[in-house]
Amino acid sequence: MAALEKVLERIDDNQEQALARLFQLLAIKSVSTDPAYTDDCVKAGQFLVDQLQELGFEAGLRPTAGHPIVVGKAKAARPDVPHVLFYGHYDVQPADPLELWQTPPFEPRLAEPEPSHKIIVARGATDDKGQLMTFVEACRAFKETGDFPCNITILFEGEEESGSPSLPGFLAENKAELKADLALICDTGMWDRKTPAITTMLRGLVLEEVVIHGATRDLHSGMFGGAVVNPIHVLSKIIADLHDAEGHVTLPEFYEGVTELPKDVAKQWRELPFDEHHFLKDVGVSIPVGEKDRSVLEMIWSRPTCDVNGIIGGYTGKGSKTVLPAQASAKFSFRLVGQQKPEKVAESFRAFVLERLPADCKAEFISHGASPALQLPFSSEVLSRARRALQAEWGKEAVLAGSGGSIPIVGAFKQDLGMDSLMVGFGLDDDRAHSPNEKYELSSFHKGTRSWARILNALAL
Amino acid sequence: MAALEKVLERIDDNQEQALARLFQLLAIKSVSTDPAYTDDCVKAGQFLVDQLQELGFEAGLRPTAGHPIVVGKAKAARPDVPHVLFYGHYDVQPADPLELWQTPPFEPRLAEPEPSHKIIVARGATDDKGQLMTFVEACRAFKETGDFPCNITILFEGEEESGSPSLPGFLAENKAELKADLALICDTGMWDRKTPAITTMLRGLVLEEVVIHGATRDLHSGMFGGAVVNPIHVLSKIIADLHDAEGHVTLPEFYEGVTELPKDVAKQWRELPFDEHHFLKDVGVSIPVGEKDRSVLEMIWSRPTCDVNGIIGGYTGKGSKTVLPAQASAKFSFRLVGQQKPEKVAESFRAFVLERLPADCKAEFISHGASPALQLPFSSEVLSRARRALQAEWGKEAVLAGSGGSIPIVGAFKQDLGMDSLMVGFGLDDDRAHSPNEKYELSSFHKGTRSWARILNALAL
Repeated sequence: MAALEKVLERIDDNQEQALARLFQLLAIKSVSTDPAYTDDCVKAGQFLVDQLQELGFEAGLRPTAGHPIVVGKAKAARPDVPHVLFYGHYDVQPADPLELWQTPPFEPRLAEPEPSHKIIVARGATDDKGQLMTFVEACRAFKETGDFPCNITILFEGEEESGSPSLPGFLAENKAELKADLALICDTGMWDRKTPAITTMLRGLVLEEVVIHGATRDLHSGMFGGAVVNPIHVLSKIIADLHDAEGHVTLPEFYEGVTELPKDVAKQWRELPFDEHHFLKDVGVSIPVGEKDRSVLEMIWSRPTCDVNGIIGGYTGKGSKTVLPAQASAKFSFRLVGQQKPEKVAESFRAFVLERLPADCKAEFISHGASPALQLPFSSEVLSRARRALQAEWGKEAVLAGSGGSIPIVGAFKQDLGMDSLMVGFGLDDDRAHSPNEKYELSSFHKGTRSWARILNALAL
Repeated sequence: MAALEKVLERIDDNQEQALARLFQLLAIKSVSTDPAYTDDCVKAGQFLVDQLQELGFEAGLRPTAGHPIVVGKAKAARPDVPHVLFYGHYDVQPADPLELWQTPPFEPRLAEPEPSHKIIVARGATDDKGQLMTFVEACRAFKETGDFPCNITILFEGEEESGSPSLPGFLAENKAELKADLALICDTGMWDRKTPAITTMLRGLVLEEVVIHGATRDLHSGMFGGAVVNPIHVLSKIIADLHDAEGHVTLPEFYEGVTELPKDVAKQWRELPFDEHHFLKDVGVSIPVGEKDRSVLEMIWSRPTCDVNGIIGGYTGKGSKTVLPAQASAKFSFRLVGQQKPEKVAESFRAFVLERLPADCKAEFISHGASPALQLPFSSEVLSRARRALQAEWGKEAVLAGSGGSIPIVGAFKQDLGMDSLMVGFGLDDDRAHSPNEKYELSSFHKGTRSWARILNALAL
């Protein structure tokens, strides 16, 4: 029997014990935002340290200004194997409102909503305790049947649900120790219950605020209206100009660095059972507004966008006031993909505004941050291996998904430690993360563990 | 000596006494907004009733829910003379901040800021006690030298500075009594210290608020941005579309009913020493934004406009929030001139919005009022006579001015009583109405009185 076969068999044989260990972790009330649970956070961290030590990891709780960070390190006996850093978080969202839970949130249980469909119900089941334990259990199976296939560093933080305040400093201070060949992250979802997914793209973000100043004070619109510039009009014209009739963003050179999907990925996306109509209907609309030649999945995963997130100017109370306002402002966000450069987009945007600014107006710019898109190259060997591993486990090709939102840790790994991230997760859209009755599919837990075994094995070949 | 000569001579001979009577009125603290001065308001009204009765008017205080209204009526002995209704207000603005007054606001005094330049300083000097007394003193001179040239009704209200809450009801209840051939109003200004003005045009107003609804709830702009409609974009496009590059309003048929100025008026405006640059510089700008083929005076007096008075949508707090808002709203005001129909403009605007509304969005409309422009026809005999009278008094042609703002009483006279209003006033831009150290030029008071004598005489010829 090949080594991997033994590992997978071990995982299958150990399901009950694995679930018991996960339940132990789920029973700890490691709510990071509420100081009342500080001790529970330490307890959850210590539980994981114990688990890792049991598996031969050199592991410990590392203090921060907030909740401690778990770091564990294990070396494979074989030389010249890859070094991976696995990231997860042991803290969970508050469980409120408690009255909406069918059973207490920190009393994990197995439920069977329909025959042969089992779910693990508890706060943190899918976000992120169930997910991180798939990796720990995979490590256990390797350890119990032989040796680790890779050098493995593990990083579990306890503040993800409160914005990870301690993590950036910790990464900076421990660069040498934490740097690996590749980061593995298990905090994303599957395409559906039977189809695995690898999140290979995270859009970048440029946040710009603009204040347009006209007259030196608010004026009577009867006395000055028609003659004196209205900053709301100026701002509206700028916003209107930012898209053409085809839904493209009109900033000069905006699409520089935007690459097309490889043919096989494009084909995969086209063939995905994604119901655009249903996706839009869910939020009360029916017609996609993005680039006319793109699918909705492209619009939200692989194409750059521009949205105004807020606008204000003049009188906004009840009734009317005939004021010609002295200023108006708006907050813009640009989602970036591929090799788009945040600083170039910000510059181009500011130039765009200034070009449209009447000589009489002033524009004040405020940056609220900028970060590039993150992409695991489609051609990378790591991705090929992970795809093959997931295909072997699930009998279906893994969807190469994008994510419109940002996952800050991925940016930090890339920028501070120079590592790409392989994001494979087994959550489902209906897992109720952050909501009452959070759950994790038992199949996600079991086959997720098997998936990591296959991936670790594939990475080391 | 002709009758008018005697009247004017009488006015000249009586200057000292006239000033004494005005000072008596100015000494009464008739602040309408502050209940502490309720008795003073009655006192001011009664003072005017006494004045009118002295001149043979049938006059009295008429109760309202607020401060009383003074109504006085006098008939000329000669039959078939015109019947005029004179309107003014005896209430004044609060005097705060008191510490900024050089002398107490209700202790009227004559000052001489430079040789041969005398001013009357007191709260209400220009707004409106000094102005209304020019008419009363003109009546006195007629009475003391013979008879009134017209049938005269006088209407002094005591709530103008608090929004005239009682006046509409009073007009409606006393239509038959108050209806005259023409209303005379002395609550506006001169062009400059030596040039009289007649305000012949008040722009109308259409106030419309629009709420654009998109998705059923605020969305994460990373997850949905680029695919789901953004109501701020939709609203901005509508606002941007409302003007063309030449500054014209693009609503279909918007300019229907807008008439050109008569040639002589256009010529007068062109030749007025109006410094556009100075007017704009005063409020911190330098380039007029209205219709490119129009002067600034036209923009603010005789041309219709569209301004957004307020806009709000999405996140408007500090920093950033990557929200794709469910709605955005804006308040629009249209200033109307000539025969533009408010209801047609409102309809056209709503159709304009609906035409530009993506199928996915809904628009909610809220009207905050609509009123037509008011114009004393340039060709009217009344206007010709008033112009000649003012020319005779001041030795300069009266400026036929417009006003961008609204004067509600003029609309009420037109709509409820079917009367045009002749607006002649002697205030100056630097009179500090509503501010500390309010003043009225002594020459305005004296020559204003003479002006009314000439106008009344001219109207009766």
